[in-house]
Amino acid sequence: MRVLSGIQPSGSLHLGNYFGMMKKMIEYQEQEELFCFIANYHAMTSVADGKVLAKGTLEAAANFLALGMDPQKSTFWVQSDLPEVQELSWFLSNFTPMGLLERCHSYKDKVARGIHANHGLFAYPVLMSADILLFQSEKVPVGKDQKQHVEVTRDIALKVNNTYGELFTIPEPEVDDNVATVPGLDGQKMSKSYGNTIDLFLEEKALRKQVMRIVTDPTPVEAPKDPDACNVFQIYRLFLDKAAEEALRRRYLAGGLGYGEVKGELFETVRDFFAPYAERRAELLADPEGLRAVLATGADKARQVALKTLGRVRKKAGLIY
Amino acid sequence: MRVLSGIQPSGSLHLGNYFGMMKKMIEYQEQEELFCFIANYHAMTSVADGKVLAKGTLEAAANFLALGMDPQKSTFWVQSDLPEVQELSWFLSNFTPMGLLERCHSYKDKVARGIHANHGLFAYPVLMSADILLFQSEKVPVGKDQKQHVEVTRDIALKVNNTYGELFTIPEPEVDDNVATVPGLDGQKMSKSYGNTIDLFLEEKALRKQVMRIVTDPTPVEAPKDPDACNVFQIYRLFLDKAAEEALRRRYLAGGLGYGEVKGELFETVRDFFAPYAERRAELLADPEGLRAVLATGADKARQVALKTLGRVRKKAGLIY
Repeated sequence: MRVLSGIQPSGSLHLGNYFGMMKKMIEYQEQEELFCFIANYHAMTSVADGKVLAKGTLEAAANFLALGMDPQKSTFWVQSDLPEVQELSWFLSNFTPMGLLERCHSYKDKVARGIHANHGLFAYPVLMSADILLFQSEKVPVGKDQKQHVEVTRDIALKVNNTYGELFTIPEPEVDDNVATVPGLDGQKMSKSYGNTIDLFLEEKALRKQVMRIVTDPTPVEAPKDPDACNVFQIYRLFLDKAAEEALRRRYLAGGLGYGEVKGELFETVRDFFAPYAERRAELLADPEGLRAVLATGADKARQVALKTLGRVRKKAGLIY
Repeated sequence: MRVLSGIQPSGSLHLGNYFGMMKKMIEYQEQEELFCFIANYHAMTSVADGKVLAKGTLEAAANFLALGMDPQKSTFWVQSDLPEVQELSWFLSNFTPMGLLERCHSYKDKVARGIHANHGLFAYPVLMSADILLFQSEKVPVGKDQKQHVEVTRDIALKVNNTYGELFTIPEPEVDDNVATVPGLDGQKMSKSYGNTIDLFLEEKALRKQVMRIVTDPTPVEAPKDPDACNVFQIYRLFLDKAAEEALRRRYLAGGLGYGEVKGELFETVRDFFAPYAERRAELLADPEGLRAVLATGADKARQVALKTLGRVRKKAGLIY
């Protein structure tokens, strides 16, 4: 089965990115045909500083490769190395009722949060649809907040197929309820835009500081605590197997466990878990030309699939005259 | 001065296209650096039938070349042969406030007329901006109804330049009040969507039928008539020099001129005026491969300019990592 996913290169990586998406992607490589890209076009909706975006793109590539992305097994590329996706996006725009985009929560929420509404933000789901359909993706693992966009993609693809015959595979969204939403420091969804993240590949001191900022209630040390209501526990359990999670749960319920203590343990766990990946990442970033070569090969691989779809689209749409 | 213009290949050509735009384009070649393209991406907002679009594209090319477009003097290409414009359009989208697009009359009018609003229609001015800015156009001759779109382009370009320095030339719209709006059979602006056109390159019988359908008032033959209130006169004068127009005006004012008579003269004038062009057009269409070769050369010429702009945009936006 062909699985597609993208990650934005904007800013540093956090646990929400890792457990919500990257970890699963890397596991998918073993059983599925994975198409995975660095969504730098999408990032343009929020990053206007080209230097930041360029640096973020290279870092995102290093992150993924360090964490286990295998460019032999999978197709791994930078979105803008296939500008063909923009042409497909225009094609799809003509099958996208305005109402479909106006109803997108992600857009409405951002506007409600006072984010300046540019057309790029509004058109984001069309570009995302192009990403998905260009590669005839069957499964799209997404967080809950992105599920609606895959539904938009399905609607658009069905409209196109109704007009032109079976041009597109209809993709299925896949929301894994276990890990879809990683809580942030404040218990809201972990998100860079909420400023509540625990980041990967930080210096020890900065990492410890983030972990210590996790919001807890004022229950005294001696008192029993509810693990299910505790942000520290909710983050910690992502690193634990069932037995270890149960053990921690018992320590919460028994009382005598201070939040400071458990935060200290979590800090060490995060640090030790990512240490080997951080080392590999540093090696990759020390050789940017090597990194670019890997990505260029990935783009070539992706292009072979993309051009097959786009060729059929161009023919059906009448762009080949 | 670099002048840019595009024409949609949707449907047949009418007098409004010719006098509103094409004639001036062809004259521009003598003094200006003309960039002229067949806007088949734009046509996708209204044409879903790929066969119609492909045929229309080739016909539009033949029309322009027959009417005097000189691919040596000017740069003449099919929009979709430079898909690079779509990438620029995405870039610009992130500098396009939603309000700017929401205020566009052209979109609002079409929606008010009950045309189903797809995202392509809404995003049309962004793509048009990309067309204009990709070639660093200085002057954009447009009909009154498209002037606002050039103003949108200016707003977007200024925003980009404010962020990234002088990436884009700020274009000037040029509305020629004399010929900008050619009246249709019913006196409204001549437009395919209003069904009130007089078409170029028609068979005699069909052309006569269209001319005879021009709406006139019930003034009897003997009575003097007001040329300025007459649709026939308003169309006829497009073909006349000042002296001939004055002569016709006097015949109107004198009385005794029937609308049927003047329509008959107009029919002959239209037919004779376009006859040599029609012949050249038929020759061009008889050799589609030759036509395609001319267009491919034009696209290569256009690409040289486009890639210079796009290279700077990609660098500034951080797409080169």
